[in-house]
Amino acid sequence: MEFSSKLLENAVNEMSQLPGIGKRTALRLVLHLLKQPEERTSFLSQALMNLRSGINFCASCHNISDTELCEICASPKRDESIVCVVEDIRDVMAIENTSQYIGLYHVLGGKISPMEGVGPQNLNIASLVNKVKKGTVKELIFALSSTMEGDTTNFYIYRQLEGLEVTTSTIARGISVGDELEYTDEVTLGRSILNRVPFESSIKAN
Amino acid sequence: MEFSSKLLENAVNEMSQLPGIGKRTALRLVLHLLKQPEERTSFLSQALMNLRSGINFCASCHNISDTELCEICASPKRDESIVCVVEDIRDVMAIENTSQYIGLYHVLGGKISPMEGVGPQNLNIASLVNKVKKGTVKELIFALSSTMEGDTTNFYIYRQLEGLEVTTSTIARGISVGDELEYTDEVTLGRSILNRVPFESSIKAN
Repeated sequence: MEFSSKLLENAVNEMSQLPGIGKRTALRLVLHLLKQPEERTSFLSQALMNLRSGINFCASCHNISDTELCEICASPKRDESIVCVVEDIRDVMAIENTSQYIGLYHVLGGKISPMEGVGPQNLNIASLVNKVKKGTVKELIFALSSTMEGDTTNFYIYRQLEGLEVTTSTIARGISVGDELEYTDEVTLGRSILNRVPFESSIKAN
Repeated sequence: MEFSSKLLENAVNEMSQLPGIGKRTALRLVLHLLKQPEERTSFLSQALMNLRSGINFCASCHNISDTELCEICASPKRDESIVCVVEDIRDVMAIENTSQYIGLYHVLGGKISPMEGVGPQNLNIASLVNKVKKGTVKELIFALSSTMEGDTTNFYIYRQLEGLEVTTSTIARGISVGDELEYTDEVTLGRSILNRVPFESSIKAN
């Protein structure tokens, strides 16, 4: 792509560093900004800079938070004895949206992935183990995505917790509510049969 | 979507103002920036701000340019007697990529679209008519997209040029090179038959 302006080329190059944004999309976004009033661009730039420089993570669960302790960790209504282990803030938001969970969270910040150079030391695992060692946590719910990396991370943490008094569980894998049996992949269908639940509890959930 | 941080919410809101970027995608992009070194965010913000404040349009063709006259308008190799009328800089880049055109351009900055509140006075039409009035332009090629708005704009300009000595043409509409006849829409196929070209000239083009 040849540009008639260095400034334009620069902006498009920077924009296209974002995941899923190619050069063409970047050009479209940048041209859109040029058509908008100048404030739009400065609002966007400022919001990004403010976030990057002022970003703070909850001292307890490592979720993004403007305060020392995040709202969830600071709330007296939440059950401190249950901790749900998730990859990032999007998972916290997804689970919070269900309004079904009253425990706390622990945000790892990623999954163990040797391919991408992410080891246990790059994740918030040590602080999780320390939290469990203090003795207030009774149950740990693993809610990582069920990929090779997710399973590896679950297992690594599980091994670190050996000898500590804590129950571990993972969120249920099965067929999505409303999905057709025939279109479900075999692994999911297989797991949903192995991990079947008493009919009474499925009535209660509805 | 509920956010645990005002800074994060702000950044996501600003990002999701961009076309084609919803809240979820915006969150993904912003979280990506958070994982990158701080320079990445400041490079992006700076590049956008620099572009927005330093942007300059070619005095002759209104293309984006860092200099008073853009490279194309300033080049002595280009044929001043042919002017191709396009919507925005992306069309200039697309036509330049073909290396088939040696004339100049005129960037309108949009199409007449009453639905979006874009009238002739919002586009660079007056300067195009003035350019033609000076008498150096012999041919005007309309290269707007063939939508209702594109056709309206073409026709509006055509009427403005009445009485002036200039040939007008539009780029050829037809079946894309390599496409199958049976999958072509009727309008395109119909036009390609009406506007058929001598076989000899199609051989030359190859």
